[in-house]
Amino acid sequence: MVKVGIVGGTGYTGVELLRLLAQHPHAEVRAITSRKDAGTKVADMFASLRGHYPKLAFVEPDAAALAGCDVAFFATPHGVAMAQARELVAAGTKVIDLAADFRLRDPAEFERWYKMPHSCVDLLQESVYGLPEVNRDAIRKARIVGNPGCYPTAVQLGFLPLLEAGLVDTDHLIADCKSGVSGAGRKAEMNLIFPEAADNFAAYAVKGHRHLPEIVQGLNRASAKPVKLVFTPHLTPMIRGIFATLYAPLKDASADLQALYERRYASEPFVDVMPPGALPDTRSVRAANVCRIAVHRPPGSDIVTVLAVEDNLVKGAAGQAIQNMNLMCGLPETAGLAAPPVLP
Amino acid sequence: MVKVGIVGGTGYTGVELLRLLAQHPHAEVRAITSRKDAGTKVADMFASLRGHYPKLAFVEPDAAALAGCDVAFFATPHGVAMAQARELVAAGTKVIDLAADFRLRDPAEFERWYKMPHSCVDLLQESVYGLPEVNRDAIRKARIVGNPGCYPTAVQLGFLPLLEAGLVDTDHLIADCKSGVSGAGRKAEMNLIFPEAADNFAAYAVKGHRHLPEIVQGLNRASAKPVKLVFTPHLTPMIRGIFATLYAPLKDASADLQALYERRYASEPFVDVMPPGALPDTRSVRAANVCRIAVHRPPGSDIVTVLAVEDNLVKGAAGQAIQNMNLMCGLPETAGLAAPPVLP
Amino acid sequence: MVKVGIVGGTGYTGVELLRLLAQHPHAEVRAITSRKDAGTKVADMFASLRGHYPKLAFVEPDAAALAGCDVAFFATPHGVAMAQARELVAAGTKVIDLAADFRLRDPAEFERWYKMPHSCVDLLQESVYGLPEVNRDAIRKARIVGNPGCYPTAVQLGFLPLLEAGLVDTDHLIADCKSGVSGAGRKAEMNLIFPEAADNFAAYAVKGHRHLPEIVQGLNRASAKPVKLVFTPHLTPMIRGIFATLYAPLKDASADLQALYERRYASEPFVDVMPPGALPDTRSVRAANVCRIAVHRPPGSDIVTVLAVEDNLVKGAAGQAIQNMNLMCGLPETAGLAAPPVLP
Amino acid sequence: MVKVGIVGGTGYTGVELLRLLAQHPHAEVRAITSRKDAGTKVADMFASLRGHYPKLAFVEPDAAALAGCDVAFFATPHGVAMAQARELVAAGTKVIDLAADFRLRDPAEFERWYKMPHSCVDLLQESVYGLPEVNRDAIRKARIVGNPGCYPTAVQLGFLPLLEAGLVDTDHLIADCKSGVSGAGRKAEMNLIFPEAADNFAAYAVKGHRHLPEIVQGLNRASAKPVKLVFTPHLTPMIRGIFATLYAPLKDASADLQALYERRYASEPFVDVMPPGALPDTRSVRAANVCRIAVHRPPGSDIVTVLAVEDNLVKGAAGQAIQNMNLMCGLPETAGLAAPPVLP
Repeated sequence: MVKVGIVGGTGYTGVELLRLLAQHPHAEVRAITSRKDAGTKVADMFASLRGHYPKLAFVEPDAAALAGCDVAFFATPHGVAMAQARELVAAGTKVIDLAADFRLRDPAEFERWYKMPHSCVDLLQESVYGLPEVNRDAIRKARIVGNPGCYPTAVQLGFLPLLEAGLVDTDHLIADCKSGVSGAGRKAEMNLIFPEAADNFAAYAVKGHRHLPEIVQGLNRASAKPVKLVFTPHLTPMIRGIFATLYAPLKDASADLQALYERRYASEPFVDVMPPGALPDTRSVRAANVCRIAVHRPPGSDIVTVLAVEDNLVKGAAGQAIQNMNLMCGLPETAGLAAPPVLP
Repeated sequence: MVKVGIVGGTGYTGVELLRLLAQHPHAEVRAITSRKDAGTKVADMFASLRGHYPKLAFVEPDAAALAGCDVAFFATPHGVAMAQARELVAAGTKVIDLAADFRLRDPAEFERWYKMPHSCVDLLQESVYGLPEVNRDAIRKARIVGNPGCYPTAVQLGFLPLLEAGLVDTDHLIADCKSGVSGAGRKAEMNLIFPEAADNFAAYAVKGHRHLPEIVQGLNRASAKPVKLVFTPHLTPMIRGIFATLYAPLKDASADLQALYERRYASEPFVDVMPPGALPDTRSVRAANVCRIAVHRPPGSDIVTVLAVEDNLVKGAAGQAIQNMNLMCGLPETAGLAAPPVLP
Repeated sequence: MVKVGIVGGTGYTGVELLRLLAQHPHAEVRAITSRKDAGTKVADMFASLRGHYPKLAFVEPDAAALAGCDVAFFATPHGVAMAQARELVAAGTKVIDLAADFRLRDPAEFERWYKMPHSCVDLLQESVYGLPEVNRDAIRKARIVGNPGCYPTAVQLGFLPLLEAGLVDTDHLIADCKSGVSGAGRKAEMNLIFPEAADNFAAYAVKGHRHLPEIVQGLNRASAKPVKLVFTPHLTPMIRGIFATLYAPLKDASADLQALYERRYASEPFVDVMPPGALPDTRSVRAANVCRIAVHRPPGSDIVTVLAVEDNLVKGAAGQAIQNMNLMCGLPETAGLAAPPVLP
Repeated sequence: MVKVGIVGGTGYTGVELLRLLAQHPHAEVRAITSRKDAGTKVADMFASLRGHYPKLAFVEPDAAALAGCDVAFFATPHGVAMAQARELVAAGTKVIDLAADFRLRDPAEFERWYKMPHSCVDLLQESVYGLPEVNRDAIRKARIVGNPGCYPTAVQLGFLPLLEAGLVDTDHLIADCKSGVSGAGRKAEMNLIFPEAADNFAAYAVKGHRHLPEIVQGLNRASAKPVKLVFTPHLTPMIRGIFATLYAPLKDASADLQALYERRYASEPFVDVMPPGALPDTRSVRAANVCRIAVHRPPGSDIVTVLAVEDNLVKGAAGQAIQNMNLMCGLPETAGLAAPPVLP
C-alpha cells in the first residue's frame, strides 16, 4: 500500500482526495494536516466521510506528520508546497502540489502572477508538470509534480492536437471557459454565496487570470510558433464542472480533425474523443476522472470549435493528482479512478 | 459473477443501476431492455457510461432477453413487473421490482392507489418487502422482492425505533418530506422543466400520495396500534436527495432517544445515526447508499423531531435494490456499495 | 413626496428597499448610510440600480444624514436601531426597523435570544409590531414600527385564523418552514457559498431559532390559550422565498376552514387565500408583496395542514416595511407595491 | 389606453407580456387567445397573476377575439403570425410578432431555416425588424414588426458599434453565447427537465442555430463587408438571462472603444454601456428591459472582447416587444418598462 499524506485537507481538493482515495485499492491515507482544524476528525468536518475514515483526524502541519509517507499531496494555498518540498523530498517522500508552485517553469513568471518570489527554484527546475497526456514518462520518474490547474487541463487537452499538427493560426486562439463555483475553492467570499452566484452568469478576470500563463506555457510547448491566446473565464451556477469552448482559425480546411483527435488520444485512459457531431456536457463527467472532447466545424467560417469538459475537482485537480501518484509509484494508472460519473 | 438483467433501463433508476453495478465486484449486467430504444447502446444514451459499457445495448423486452440471468431488476412503470414475474421466477431468475407491484401486501390497496388490478396475487403473497433493516432474513430467501419507494425508505427508517418502542402518540404522526426532482422520474412533464422547478419550492399530492399506504403499512407493522399519518411531499430544486422531517408527540419525555436509535441501527451498514445535535443534509449522502438520521427534542413542546436524509436514487431506489440483490444472492451485503458520497 | 432615509443599505433588505422604492409614486430616497461603504454610489455596488439612482451614494451613518427624512428604515444588524431611534423620533422621523429591536415586547426575551440588553425599553413599549393584518390601526399612528421577521410573517398569517377561531389543539402546533438562502442575509459565510448550499437541503437551528419567540408572541396574542410550537427552519437551494407548512390537530372536524380563511383575509390587499385544493409555490410570489395561503385537510388524520408562501425579502421584509410606511404616512397602503410577481 | 391582444399567451413570452403590461400606464390587455386553454382564466394558469387579471380568460384564437385591438402580439410558434397578419393589418390592428415570421428579410432564408414556405411575402417586405437601436424611425411608422430573437438582440447590440465603425476583421467574428433555460420556451422536453439541465453546462446547435441567419443579416446591414460569424449557443442552469461573449480581431489597436460604445448608445434608454473594466452579470438585468455592455481588450492579443447581458424574456422578447408597441403607438418609449431589475 502506498502511504499517503495530505497537507491542508479542509478545502475542496482535499476532501475530493479523501473521497477518491477511500476507493483506491493500493493507497491509504496515513496523515492529513490542517493548522486551523488540528484535532478535528475529518468525518466531523465532512459528514460524507462518516464511516469511511472513522479515526482519521487533522494534525498540525509539521514535518513529523508526514514522516514515512510515500507521497504527500499539497492541497494548500499557493506558496506552501515550495516551502516544505525540500525536506520531504530529502526524506524520500514524493510531492504532488495541487496549487501553482510547480506549474510555471519560469520563476519570474510565477512571481509576476502570484505576487511572491519562488523560494525553491532548483526543485522547480527538477519538477515535472503533471499532465500525463504530455509528460507521462517524466512523471513516472519525478520526485515533484506540479499538478495542472483546472482550466489549463481542459484547454490544453482541447488545443494540443491542433497545435502539435500545426493546423491553426496561433495568433488568434480563444478559450471561452465556464466553471462551476467549486473552482473558486472552499472560501467564504461574498461573490460566491448562493444568492449572488445562483441563477446568474458572469465573466471574471477578463484582464488576466492566473491560469493564462500556465495555459500559454503548455500550448507553446506543443506549438512551432508562440501562441496568442484570449482566455475568458466565466462563473456558471453549478457546483462542479468546466466547459471549455475553444476557437482557432484553421489553416488547412481539408484536415480530418476527427481522425486527428482520435489518433492523438487513442491510448489515453482519461481522454474521451466523442463521435462526430457529439455535444459533451459537464454532467457526463461529474465526479469522474475524464475529459471529453468533441471537434466541430461550424458553418460559414474557417474557424474550428473544440468543446472540452471535465470535472474541475477530478480531472481538473484531485483525480489527476491521483493519476500522477499512480504513475510516480508504479501503480496501474487507472487505479482508484474507475468509478463512472454521477448522472443525473 | 451474478448475471444481471435490467428491464426498462432508460429512466433514472435504470441508469443508476448501471452506474452502481459498473463498480460491483461480483455482478455483471448481461442484458438491458427497452421497447422504445432497442438497438441503442446505453453509452449512446448516457454519455456518462462511455467506457464503462462499451458494447451493452438495449434489447427488446421479451423473455429471451433475460434468459440465464440470476437476477432481474424491473426499473419500469408500475404494472410491468407483475406481468413478467411468473415466467422469470419459474425459470429460476430472482426478481427485484423497483416499482410498486410488490410493495403493498393488500391487492385491493394496490388497485385503489395505482388504478389497475393486481394480476399476480399469489406471487405478491410470496414476495418480500425489500427493506433490509426490517426484513433481512426474509429477503435472503426471497424469489421476489418489492423494493421500497424513496419516501417510504426514509420515513420508515426514521420512525421505526419510536414505534417499535411504543414511545409516541401514533394518532398524530407527521412526515414533512422534501424531494429532489429526480424523484419524479425521467419524464418530459411541464412542471418538471427547469424554469418551472428551479428557484421554487412547492408541495404536491397533499390530498394523498401513492407512498402514503406503503408508509402506513410499514409503520403499522412496527406499531402496536395502527398509526394515523399526515404525509406532505414537497418538490425542492435539487437533483437528488430526500429530506424527511418527522414529528410525533412523545408519550414518555424521559426516554433516551439517542440511545434508542443507536441501539436499533448499531449493526446496520447503511443507516447512520448521527451524534446528538447533528443536522444531516442531503449532500452528505449524495450518490451513496446510506440513510443518515438525527433525533431532536425541540424546546417548548413534547414533540420529537427526527431528521432523515437519503439519496432517492440510491438508498431510495437502485442502491437498496442492489443491497437486496446482495442478500438474495448470498453476496456480502455491502458489495458494490462502498463508494463515499460525492461532496461538494 | 415622503422623504426616506435608509440606514445600512448594503444588505439584501437594503437593496430590496431601493428596488421597491424606485417604483414608489409617493416616496423618494433622500439618504442611505453605510459606515463601510460611505462614498460609494449605490449603483456602483448594485449594477441593477444603474439608471435608477444615478447620484445616490452611501454616506456615513451620523444623525445629519437622516435629518429631514420623514421615515428612516433600519436595514441593519440587531441592536443598531434601538441605539438611534430616540434621536430620530425626537426629530420627527418615523422609524421602521427591519431587524429585531422592536419585535419582542418583553426586553428580557430580547436579551435572551439576541444576547444583548435592550437599550431603549420605553420606546419598545411605545413601538408597534408591524404586521398590518393584525395591527393596522396601531401602525397608522405609530412612531416606531418593528417590522416582522420573514418566518414570523408567513407562520402567523398561516395560523392566525385557526387560533382566533379557537379551532385547534394549541399544544401541538408545528411550523415546518423552508427558506431561500437570501433569508440568511448578504453575508460571506462558508455554509452559504454556492457549492455548499446548492443541490442540498438542510435543517438548521432546530434547537431554537430567534424567530421562535416572535412567532409564539404573535400566536399567543391571537389564541385564548398559550401555544406550544415546534418550529423547524430549513435551507433550500433557491434565492428567495419562504414556504411554511403548518400543522395543527383540529378540535372540530366539521369547521369550514376555507370559508374561515377567506373571511379573515377578505379585505387584505396582500394576503391571497387560494381556492380549495390549491397548492401555492414560492415562485408565484417572487419579488412581490403577497402571502398566498391554502388550507388542506389531509386524509386519514384530524390534522389540518396550512401552506403559506411569501418572498422573504418582500412580504417577509422590505415590502412589508413599505406597506407599514404607507400606513404610517397616510398613503394608500398598496402604493409602490403593485407589480406582479416575476414568473418564471 | 392602447387596447392590446395577445395571441398564444400560455408560453413564457406570453406570461411575460402579461406581467409587464400589468404595470403599463397606457395599455390594457383586452384579449388573450389559446386554442388549447380557451375558457381558462390566466390567473388559474399562472398563480402569479392572481389579483392582477381577475377576469381575463383565454379565448379561441379567431379573428373576433382581437377585433378592436390596437395592437396584437403574437407569442406563438413560428408560422402563426404570418397566417393571421393580413386580416389584422387590414382591420387596422398593428402586429408585433415575437416569433420568427417577420425577422428574416429573405423568404428563401426563412424557408431554409424554419422548414416552411413564407406565406405572406408582401407583408414581410413591408414589415420592420424591431430592434429600436437600429430601426427606431421605421418602427414608429410600421404596421408589422418582427421582434428580434433573444440571442440576436444581445449579439447585434454588442457587435454593432465595432462593425459600423469598420474596426474589426469581419471574417473572424465569434459569438459565444450562454442562455438560461427559459430561452427554450415553456415546453415539456426531456433535455429541459430539472435533473437534466441543473448543475450542468452544455453547448447545442453548434452546427447551425436558427438565430444565426438573423444575426448575420443584422450584422451585414451594419458592416461594409459581409461578416463570417461563428455562433455557439450554450445552455446554462439559470432560469432567465443571456450572456454573450463576443470576439473580433481588431484592425486598429489604437481605437478608443469605450468612447465608441458610449457615443453609439448615448441616447438609448435601454442599452447601458458600463464603465471601463466592468464585468456585467445576468442578474443585473433580471426581469428588466435593458442590455448592459462592457468592452474589454484582453492582454496578449489583438482581439477585442465584448460582454453583453440581457434578460432573454424582456429585452430579448416581451420587453422589447412592448418597447416596439410604445414606438408604434406614439407612447413614451419607456412606458411600462421602468421597473428595476430584481436582485438578488
